[in-house]
Amino acid sequence: MVSRKTTHASVSPKGSLETLSQREVQQLRETGSGSVYALFRQCALAILNTGSHSDNAKTILEAYPDFEIRIHQQDRGIRLELLNAPADAFVDGEMIASTREMLFSALRDIVYTESELAHQRVDFSSSQGITDYVFHLLRNARTLRPGVEPKMVVCWGGHSIGHEEYKYTKTVGHELGLRGLDICTGCGPGVMKGPMKGATIAHAKQRNVGGRYLGLTEPGIIAAEAPNPIVNELVILPDIEKRLEAFVRVGHGIIIFPGGAGTAEELLYLLGILMHPDNRDLPFPLILTGPRSASAYLQQLHDFIGATLGSDAQQRYQIILHDPAQVAREMAQGIKAVTQFRRERNDAFHFNWLLKIDEQFQHPFEPTHDNMANLKLTREQPVHELAAHLRRAFSGIVSGNVKDQGIRRIEQHGPYRLAGDKAIMQPLDRLLQAFVEQHRMKLPGNTAYVPCYQLVD
Amino acid sequence: MVSRKTTHASVSPKGSLETLSQREVQQLRETGSGSVYALFRQCALAILNTGSHSDNAKTILEAYPDFEIRIHQQDRGIRLELLNAPADAFVDGEMIASTREMLFSALRDIVYTESELAHQRVDFSSSQGITDYVFHLLRNARTLRPGVEPKMVVCWGGHSIGHEEYKYTKTVGHELGLRGLDICTGCGPGVMKGPMKGATIAHAKQRNVGGRYLGLTEPGIIAAEAPNPIVNELVILPDIEKRLEAFVRVGHGIIIFPGGAGTAEELLYLLGILMHPDNRDLPFPLILTGPRSASAYLQQLHDFIGATLGSDAQQRYQIILHDPAQVAREMAQGIKAVTQFRRERNDAFHFNWLLKIDEQFQHPFEPTHDNMANLKLTREQPVHELAAHLRRAFSGIVSGNVKDQGIRRIEQHGPYRLAGDKAIMQPLDRLLQAFVEQHRMKLPGNTAYVPCYQLVD
Amino acid sequence: MVSRKTTHASVSPKGSLETLSQREVQQLRETGSGSVYALFRQCALAILNTGSHSDNAKTILEAYPDFEIRIHQQDRGIRLELLNAPADAFVDGEMIASTREMLFSALRDIVYTESELAHQRVDFSSSQGITDYVFHLLRNARTLRPGVEPKMVVCWGGHSIGHEEYKYTKTVGHELGLRGLDICTGCGPGVMKGPMKGATIAHAKQRNVGGRYLGLTEPGIIAAEAPNPIVNELVILPDIEKRLEAFVRVGHGIIIFPGGAGTAEELLYLLGILMHPDNRDLPFPLILTGPRSASAYLQQLHDFIGATLGSDAQQRYQIILHDPAQVAREMAQGIKAVTQFRRERNDAFHFNWLLKIDEQFQHPFEPTHDNMANLKLTREQPVHELAAHLRRAFSGIVSGNVKDQGIRRIEQHGPYRLAGDKAIMQPLDRLLQAFVEQHRMKLPGNTAYVPCYQLVD
Amino acid sequence: MVSRKTTHASVSPKGSLETLSQREVQQLRETGSGSVYALFRQCALAILNTGSHSDNAKTILEAYPDFEIRIHQQDRGIRLELLNAPADAFVDGEMIASTREMLFSALRDIVYTESELAHQRVDFSSSQGITDYVFHLLRNARTLRPGVEPKMVVCWGGHSIGHEEYKYTKTVGHELGLRGLDICTGCGPGVMKGPMKGATIAHAKQRNVGGRYLGLTEPGIIAAEAPNPIVNELVILPDIEKRLEAFVRVGHGIIIFPGGAGTAEELLYLLGILMHPDNRDLPFPLILTGPRSASAYLQQLHDFIGATLGSDAQQRYQIILHDPAQVAREMAQGIKAVTQFRRERNDAFHFNWLLKIDEQFQHPFEPTHDNMANLKLTREQPVHELAAHLRRAFSGIVSGNVKDQGIRRIEQHGPYRLAGDKAIMQPLDRLLQAFVEQHRMKLPGNTAYVPCYQLVD
Repeated sequence: MVSRKTTHASVSPKGSLETLSQREVQQLRETGSGSVYALFRQCALAILNTGSHSDNAKTILEAYPDFEIRIHQQDRGIRLELLNAPADAFVDGEMIASTREMLFSALRDIVYTESELAHQRVDFSSSQGITDYVFHLLRNARTLRPGVEPKMVVCWGGHSIGHEEYKYTKTVGHELGLRGLDICTGCGPGVMKGPMKGATIAHAKQRNVGGRYLGLTEPGIIAAEAPNPIVNELVILPDIEKRLEAFVRVGHGIIIFPGGAGTAEELLYLLGILMHPDNRDLPFPLILTGPRSASAYLQQLHDFIGATLGSDAQQRYQIILHDPAQVAREMAQGIKAVTQFRRERNDAFHFNWLLKIDEQFQHPFEPTHDNMANLKLTREQPVHELAAHLRRAFSGIVSGNVKDQGIRRIEQHGPYRLAGDKAIMQPLDRLLQAFVEQHRMKLPGNTAYVPCYQLVD
Repeated sequence: MVSRKTTHASVSPKGSLETLSQREVQQLRETGSGSVYALFRQCALAILNTGSHSDNAKTILEAYPDFEIRIHQQDRGIRLELLNAPADAFVDGEMIASTREMLFSALRDIVYTESELAHQRVDFSSSQGITDYVFHLLRNARTLRPGVEPKMVVCWGGHSIGHEEYKYTKTVGHELGLRGLDICTGCGPGVMKGPMKGATIAHAKQRNVGGRYLGLTEPGIIAAEAPNPIVNELVILPDIEKRLEAFVRVGHGIIIFPGGAGTAEELLYLLGILMHPDNRDLPFPLILTGPRSASAYLQQLHDFIGATLGSDAQQRYQIILHDPAQVAREMAQGIKAVTQFRRERNDAFHFNWLLKIDEQFQHPFEPTHDNMANLKLTREQPVHELAAHLRRAFSGIVSGNVKDQGIRRIEQHGPYRLAGDKAIMQPLDRLLQAFVEQHRMKLPGNTAYVPCYQLVD
Repeated sequence: MVSRKTTHASVSPKGSLETLSQREVQQLRETGSGSVYALFRQCALAILNTGSHSDNAKTILEAYPDFEIRIHQQDRGIRLELLNAPADAFVDGEMIASTREMLFSALRDIVYTESELAHQRVDFSSSQGITDYVFHLLRNARTLRPGVEPKMVVCWGGHSIGHEEYKYTKTVGHELGLRGLDICTGCGPGVMKGPMKGATIAHAKQRNVGGRYLGLTEPGIIAAEAPNPIVNELVILPDIEKRLEAFVRVGHGIIIFPGGAGTAEELLYLLGILMHPDNRDLPFPLILTGPRSASAYLQQLHDFIGATLGSDAQQRYQIILHDPAQVAREMAQGIKAVTQFRRERNDAFHFNWLLKIDEQFQHPFEPTHDNMANLKLTREQPVHELAAHLRRAFSGIVSGNVKDQGIRRIEQHGPYRLAGDKAIMQPLDRLLQAFVEQHRMKLPGNTAYVPCYQLVD
Repeated sequence: MVSRKTTHASVSPKGSLETLSQREVQQLRETGSGSVYALFRQCALAILNTGSHSDNAKTILEAYPDFEIRIHQQDRGIRLELLNAPADAFVDGEMIASTREMLFSALRDIVYTESELAHQRVDFSSSQGITDYVFHLLRNARTLRPGVEPKMVVCWGGHSIGHEEYKYTKTVGHELGLRGLDICTGCGPGVMKGPMKGATIAHAKQRNVGGRYLGLTEPGIIAAEAPNPIVNELVILPDIEKRLEAFVRVGHGIIIFPGGAGTAEELLYLLGILMHPDNRDLPFPLILTGPRSASAYLQQLHDFIGATLGSDAQQRYQIILHDPAQVAREMAQGIKAVTQFRRERNDAFHFNWLLKIDEQFQHPFEPTHDNMANLKLTREQPVHELAAHLRRAFSGIVSGNVKDQGIRRIEQHGPYRLAGDKAIMQPLDRLLQAFVEQHRMKLPGNTAYVPCYQLVD
């Protein structure tokens, strides 16, 4: 292992952590020693590595085994002391401003979540309670800005894509930025960075100084997908379900770029919600796009949706091949409809209260072999429920491919067994095969892909 | 009764009430119908009368018997509907911006207090808990601004003073403003308005656009002392003890102008705190001042403090007679010492955490005849405890003079009997006599003053 | 003579004088020694007395006989050294920000004018040339702000009016400010201050931080009418004709309050312009107003206009008696029409290019006895030309009443002789008589008024 | 020739052209038809191609033969009508904000220069007059900002460099930006773009929203080196001598990256100025740097300076090889010394008045064969004069290599003949040989380089 340059430093907060009561400072200090310490340390290390080229969480964490972070109480507030921190986060001994900001964003969100849980202020048993929780966390992060016209575009897709696809995401971001739109992503590399980079240049060209680059992440993934340095607002949601809900409630439209099983999961999540009868009349611009070389990929995805969820589901999105300006024009147009709709309904611009999210999309799915086997992959149910089951299937595959616990499960019990109607299983099989062939099944190493699933008719 | 011009209107919030969760909107709606409605209606009416010349709460309330305020839920947030509201609060049908701001400040603070109480989030049993509560309420009102150099001067004194004294407070405010200092008062007329008015002109002269005119009030007094129109930040504390604590924790220095028993009570409150051994080394600029005509008054007050609390207490303040520029210079100088002190101790600029406030100053005193008779007005106790007892004596006198319940108590049981050491009772007698002679004992009507107390050796 | 407190000081410029070329610094230094020095010294002294209560130029100038102002060159720019300056302009040794601003405004305008004249850049021989000059001087003072919606209301009237009339101008200013309108006056006391004061409070109430209080003055009058401290933009025009043109080109509407012969002159100037056939369709809101007590005054003025210029002239203004809110509403309404008109014609909001000003209103009138005797006060001419002659008559009377040279002329040659049609001379006689009776003929001393004119049929 | 997409459009100005007098509008209209039209059209076309990848002026100009630009007068100001303009400058029919800004910057500077010349306001006969002219042009472009701490770093070097060198300039720009420094270049591609790009990202990371990217260009070169899209302030100086003076007077330090004969010319220009005895004590940070691969290049340049101008000249710069952070640290350090120096001397931060520029560096050099042959390349003169002659030699070589007129001269008369001391001619020969070998002699085509000069002992 290469030894890295490290440094010691002491930083004071900016933003909402500047004015704390003594009670709150006390809580924070506990963060510095108690059970959440590991969580915070891990997020902090990821943030201090912002812009580093490694996307391997383990590598980063192992590279700084001596890294420590201490929270000091002082009458005036708090101060963080960093020991053996990555030297790249500093310029001539001073921490880079954005890094400092993100560091305290992480602390803010972790402490908020802990505090809400400790005081049992969240009602996790109801859909409304979970939505309120997501809202409060985002508001506490000062992400919700009243009165601002809708212009937040969420970009989803793979974090590890080819150069041509990456370049394409930059060009799309550039066209979005030229039209005054902001970008929200999962805040890591690849599709999470490209559109922000393009929009940055475009906002500069349009002399638009308030451009927002919102990154929504989770503690479990931040180390692998360290926030790219363009992110100027960082929010850490506690898990993937809250994070997905945050995306669809703060975004005014979504663009899906090429990706792997994870991206398919996201698309199914969103379609599952949009197919809910309550959301029938709700405008929600959704565009699938990619460069010319992604043509086959987009067709397969489209066919799969048609074969499983039907043509109604296909009506909820547009596919635009290799035309960044057209993507941006359609998105701008779609967001105008959203603005009009919210204005008529007197709904907030900053949070999509009217979107109905079924509780089954709000609670986490645990991909055990039993749960996977019991997924109901049949036509005998409302389409939005089928979408929910399909999403879980992909969620499980992602886990079996790359997540620690999932891999162990596969090692112990063999591949997952997914059963269902032929009319669903066959398209699923074709899609997964295509992912394998196109090397979109991300693997920890570089070995040939051995499927973690088995389709059963 | 003269019938007043009224109007109907509908207004949307600005500030922290713009982004609400559905749960919070629900709570607000309950405010519109439940037990706190009367409280909110009363505050709203006072605010809509901002700048009116009547300081009689009853008059205002009775002048608009049909006034109603309804809170409507809409997806996007809330909306207030006002029926039969005072027409003067509107210009061509649109509510004046500052009035709208204050209206939502009142709603914000009342709802915050109700919500904290409902969720039992405040620990009223400990001094620390009460202080934290005051801090949280002020922070929720966005009054605490981190990183701003100390410059908030609290001005205390009578709300009903003569023209010359009023003019003097304006001149002092002008001199404070010329030196870049901000003003905090109880937000009504008289001494609460003069310094703000003078500072406004001075800030304009110095091209200082961010001047703060902070008004701290309570629901019980806002109707009688409607916020003057210069106030640009309004906070409603739940009772006099929280309000006094707010004053001494956000103010960086205090100026006391002439007033009556209430002003004496405030001086004793502050000296009681400053005489606490823990505060011995804490810098806290305190200036007693007035125009030449107030010379005798200031001397009497000074003599009384000397005779009762001793020369140590006299060291904690300066008396400056008829020299506004000198008052401002001394205050600016004193605040520099405060800044230096907090910097050294790393204490916040925006909240005086280091000031020790004994619990006996945080809990309300109920002026029953028994409680008054039991006050310990003797030398056989630490000076700061004597100050606490003396403060309560004046608090009782204020109540017996003008407060509804106090007046009834006197009618039933005769004057309060205050007993103690001759060395304390005699100066007290002299001071009270002087107040009577100088017409500083504020009376509901205009009859000759009949003392509500009796001094017993 | 009372000796005043004075001080020495050294100040650096803000605004357009911060970046000077060496050539320009050289020019400025010449200002410090050459022929314009007396002019600059006089303006500077007036500004340093801002807010003083004396309106007697001579008093001010004589009170500080030792006052000197030196312009120092330094590589970085210039620095002013003030010797024996009025101490009131300083707070603890530092010059008040607005005073410093105005001081450099005066220097800026005087130097600009000198430089334009020296380089013969102004074409004083053509109407267009004079207008361009006024424009360039205002632009150099950064008074012209592109893209801002019309909202500048000019207020004219006496600088020495009674308390009730003064109070009325404040209330009107307050109502204007509540409607977001800005104020422009001659920048001295009386009507020049009241509306600004009222608007300041109203702008604060409406949380309008960018309120403009524009003062237009001339070197000859600034000492007698020292800028009031509310003025936040000061421009010094070289003479009364340029100043009047500046008023009507930057103002979007004009309100005329009670005044004396000078105010009558202003009204005739404006009506003379508005009656020009080229301006027939040009909207220009003009309101004559005053408190109830000014009723007779307003009626006389109105009658006089009717009798001399006819009912067409009366159509160009409204008279509103004692109704500040109505004045403001009508002005706001009138300015809307102006906005609409300029938008349609693509004319600038910040300068009224389309207003035709005849050359005879741009060149100064010298009130010699011959010139006065030759005024053509007859009906046999276009109405706007009659207005021009009447204006000159009043201009001469003002001069004969109060101006140094005019008084001397009267002493030498006796009263001016004004001749003309009976139909014009009789109403003129009645109006002048009324001014005398109402004490609106301002006199240097307090002796009974001896007319400086004689009307001849 | 490929036909390009074009569009018609009409745009209104922003900035200093928003408030024009009628006289000025008239002047502008003349620009639209008179002799300067070709100049403006050429600049406009270059700007509308901002960000295009071609650096061939001729290509761009020929690609849009139908492009026309018309200046329309309207009462409110001016409007530009563009016919057959490059479509890439527009987004959905609206011109990109930065392009619009630059378009009016070009118009502003061209009109200013024309107007100054027309009114004979510039004294081109004196060194002081030329400096004043450069100052006035920059001030008119609002480039000079008083009171801002020195932080403008000029970056010089080739506009057509290899990928590794380009990447290195980005990294250096990033390190400069991290330290809060701004960038000024010739505003084209290559070294003129890289540092701006790096600084943009760094300023974003440091949450520095006011980063300046100043581009100084000339009409003759703007088409070949179209402003890169990051430039947010564009100034067009009339010729290379004024442009070079602008660089050294607004820059607080200069970094020289690898380049060809042009870069050598710039270095000699700067050293010639710095070697002037009057500038001996003037701090002026100057750094030569490049990536590891440029090591030989830097050594040759250094040796050449040593051999010709001597070791004193070598003391005026540092060479830093492949260490971007060190470059930035040294520059920041050097600028601190500049700040200190100007503060002590009271010199402006925004314009280096104290730098002595000899007149021979202010007047253009015409590279005829006679002038070249007469250059005094000998040791018998002060070093700064030798530098001036050497600069002219390189200037001639650049001309003979690539400029239209220079190439024609060589075709007619054969290579320039340069004569001088052996001690100067030999190092010169070695340096030129090295440029040829490293392909730094930029050629119009790609043929083998045939020297346009001949060295004679």
